[in-house]
Amino acid sequence: MSTPFTEFELMRDLRQDGGKIVLVVIDGLGGLPGTPDGKTELETAHTPHLDRLAAEGSLGLSIPIRPGIEPGSGPAHLSLFGYDPVRYPIGRGVLEALGIGFPLQTNDLAARGNFATVDADGLITDRRAGRISTEECIRLTAQLQKASDELFDDCEVFIEPVQEHRFVFVLRGAGLGGTLTDTDPLTVGKKPLPVRDESGSDAGARAAELVNRWVERARQALADEPQANSLNLRGLAQDPNLPLFPEIYGMRAGAIAVYPMYRGVASLVGMEVIEFAGDRPRHEISALVQAWDDFDFFFIHIKKTDSYGEDGDFDAKIHEIEAVDAEIPRILELGAGALIITGDHSTPAALGSHSWHPVPTLLWSPQAMPDAVQSFGERACAAGHLGICHATTLIPQAMAHAGRLKRFGA
Amino acid sequence: MSTPFTEFELMRDLRQDGGKIVLVVIDGLGGLPGTPDGKTELETAHTPHLDRLAAEGSLGLSIPIRPGIEPGSGPAHLSLFGYDPVRYPIGRGVLEALGIGFPLQTNDLAARGNFATVDADGLITDRRAGRISTEECIRLTAQLQKASDELFDDCEVFIEPVQEHRFVFVLRGAGLGGTLTDTDPLTVGKKPLPVRDESGSDAGARAAELVNRWVERARQALADEPQANSLNLRGLAQDPNLPLFPEIYGMRAGAIAVYPMYRGVASLVGMEVIEFAGDRPRHEISALVQAWDDFDFFFIHIKKTDSYGEDGDFDAKIHEIEAVDAEIPRILELGAGALIITGDHSTPAALGSHSWHPVPTLLWSPQAMPDAVQSFGERACAAGHLGICHATTLIPQAMAHAGRLKRFGA
Repeated sequence: MSTPFTEFELMRDLRQDGGKIVLVVIDGLGGLPGTPDGKTELETAHTPHLDRLAAEGSLGLSIPIRPGIEPGSGPAHLSLFGYDPVRYPIGRGVLEALGIGFPLQTNDLAARGNFATVDADGLITDRRAGRISTEECIRLTAQLQKASDELFDDCEVFIEPVQEHRFVFVLRGAGLGGTLTDTDPLTVGKKPLPVRDESGSDAGARAAELVNRWVERARQALADEPQANSLNLRGLAQDPNLPLFPEIYGMRAGAIAVYPMYRGVASLVGMEVIEFAGDRPRHEISALVQAWDDFDFFFIHIKKTDSYGEDGDFDAKIHEIEAVDAEIPRILELGAGALIITGDHSTPAALGSHSWHPVPTLLWSPQAMPDAVQSFGERACAAGHLGICHATTLIPQAMAHAGRLKRFGA
Repeated sequence: MSTPFTEFELMRDLRQDGGKIVLVVIDGLGGLPGTPDGKTELETAHTPHLDRLAAEGSLGLSIPIRPGIEPGSGPAHLSLFGYDPVRYPIGRGVLEALGIGFPLQTNDLAARGNFATVDADGLITDRRAGRISTEECIRLTAQLQKASDELFDDCEVFIEPVQEHRFVFVLRGAGLGGTLTDTDPLTVGKKPLPVRDESGSDAGARAAELVNRWVERARQALADEPQANSLNLRGLAQDPNLPLFPEIYGMRAGAIAVYPMYRGVASLVGMEVIEFAGDRPRHEISALVQAWDDFDFFFIHIKKTDSYGEDGDFDAKIHEIEAVDAEIPRILELGAGALIITGDHSTPAALGSHSWHPVPTLLWSPQAMPDAVQSFGERACAAGHLGICHATTLIPQAMAHAGRLKRFGA
C-alpha cells in the first residue's frame, strides 16, 4: 500500500512553517595543525562568540561527499543544501559557467574549454597551450566570440574567458540535449576527437552536430595563433534541473555571497540571490539584516578563508575566521530558530589546497542539545552530538530545531 | 556473478546460534538539560547499575529515522527491530489499530477515523467535530458499529473508539487491497472526498467501493447528531506483511510490554507477546525471568518515561529511569550474551514532546569494548564506541556481541 520514501519526499511530507534558519558557510573552514602546540586555524583563532555558540549548541564533523573524497566547491555546496552530489552530479560545463557568474538558462549547453597547441598534422603538442596568460585568454575568447556570432541561424554561442588557457563555451537554442562526449583525448600526440552523442536522441544528435561545427569554425579562427591554435571542450552539460530547494523544504531561500560561483550554485537550486554592496563579512551580515523579513532560510557564503587556505596563509585564514566571529552577535539578534556554522570543505593552510578532512560544524538553536565542550574547533567537534554526519543531513537537522518538521508516523 | 546483499539477506546468511539478547526500550529516554547545572533527566537520575554497565560496555547515540526527524512510536520501534521505517512505511490506519490493541489480521484494511461536523450543504465546518468527549466517541462508535453490522454480505466492519473525535475503522474480507486515498480534504469549507484507488487493481477498486458504501451508511447514521454529524477516514492501509524478525535473525523473539501499541508493533514483525500481570518495570522483569528459557531475544518496553516526558515532568521521568535501574541486577543474573538499553526516541521534559534528538544507547556484553566513561547519559554517549548510529544497526551489533553472527567472507 505504502511505498518507500525518498529523502526529498520525506521532507515534502513533513515540512511545516517554523523559525528562520541561517546557514553560514565559511569556505574551506577545516584545517590542520599549524602552530607549535599543534592547533589548527579554527582552534587558534580568537572566537569568543563562536565558542559561546559551541557551548550552547551541538557540534559535529560533516562529510561533504564521501569519507576520503576531496570536494570541489560546487558539489560541496550542493551537499550542504541537501543534494547528495553523488546522486545529483552537475556537469563540469555548468559548474564552470556558474563559476564565472554566467547567467545560464535552462537548456543552455555549457562546456569547459581549454586552449591547446597542435602541430602541422593536427596532433596535440600541448593540452594547455603553454598556459597562456589570462590577458591572452581574454583576447582569444573575444576573437572566438566574433567568429561564432553568425555561425548558426537558430542558436546563440557565448564564449567567456576564465583564466589562463581556460574558457567557457555556451550554446543556447531549442532542441539541444543528449549525452555528449569530450573532444579532449587526454594525451598529447593525438588529434582532438569529434563530439559524439551517447544518448541516441534527436536532441543529442543535433547538439553534437552543432558543437562540432562550432569547433571547426573556432579552430579556423585560431589557426594562425603561435600557441593557442586549437582547443578542446570538456564536460558538455545542461542545467540538471534539480528539484528546487524552496519546493523541497517549503522555505523561501535567500543567498548572500560575494563570488559568482556561489551565487550560481544557489540559483541552480532555486534560491534567490540577495544583492548588496561590499565584500566583507560585515557587509554580508548587513545584507542579512536588511533581507530578514523576506526569507525563511539564508545561505551566507564567506570566501576568503578558502583563498587564504589555498595560499597556505595560516594567519590570514585565522583573521578571516575572527572577522566572521565578530559578526555573530548581529546574527543572533535577529532571532533565528536555528543557525548552522560550517564550511563546504576543509582547506588546511598546511596543505594549501581543498582536502577531504571532515568539516567542523556547529548547530545552534534554543532547542539544541548542548555538548560537553566550550569551544569551536576540529577536536571539539569530533566529540559532539551531531557526530560525523553527512553534510546533506544538516538542513533537516536545522529544520527540526527550528520547528519546521512534523513527526514521522503516529 | 554475485549480486549485492540486502541488509536482511546479510543477516540470514551470517546468523548462527549464540547467547540470548535483551533489548530494553525506555520509551522517550533521551532528554535535554533541565537542572541548574544543565543536566538531562538521564544524567540527573541516580543509576548505579546503568552506570556500571556504561563503564563496562559501549555507548552511542542512535538515530531512529533520519537525522532531524522526530519519530512516531510505531516507526521508531520498527527501526529498533532493524526495519528502516523510511523503506518500510506502515500505514497510519495500521498503527492506529495497533495502538488500541485491535487484533488486526492479514489483509484487514484499517483506517484512522475522525468525526467531523458538516453544514446543511455538506461542507465541513469542523474537521474534529468540536473535539467531542471520549464518552461521546464511545457512544457514537457503538452506533456506527450497529449501522455497519449487516451492511455487507461478505465483509465484516469493526468500529473502535480511540479518543475524543478519533476512532478506528477496520474492514475485513477477501480480495481487499489497492492504494486508497483519504476522504479528508484537510480544510474546512469543502465536502469530504470519496475514497479512490490509485493502484488500478481489482482489489483496490473493490475496497474503494466498499469503503465508500460504508462511509455513506455511516453518515446517514450520524445525520441527526449536533456535532459529530459526519466523519473522515485517513491512512487506509493493510498490514504491510513485513519480513519476520525470527526468520531474518534466526531468533525466537518474545515481547514484554504493557501498552497495546508496542505489543502490536512487536506482533507485526512476528514476535510473540508474553503475557504477565502488573504494569511496573519490576513486573516486566519478572515476566522476563519467567520466560527466559522460551526465547532467544527479548524486547522489553518501559512506557512511563515517555508519558512523563510528554507531561513535562522532569522529576517523574527521572524516578521511572531509576525504577528501571533497580531491575538491572535481575536482568544481569540471567546471563544474556548482549543487553541493549536505549529508547525508541527522545522525549525531553523540557519540550513536553517526542523530539528528533539522537537517543542514548548502551550495549553491554562480556565482549563489549568498554568506553572511557563511567556513566550513562547523553553527553557520555556522544563520545562512545557505537558513535552516532542508525537504530537499525543495533540488533546486528547485539547479535555480534552474543556470538550470533558468523564471519563475512573468508
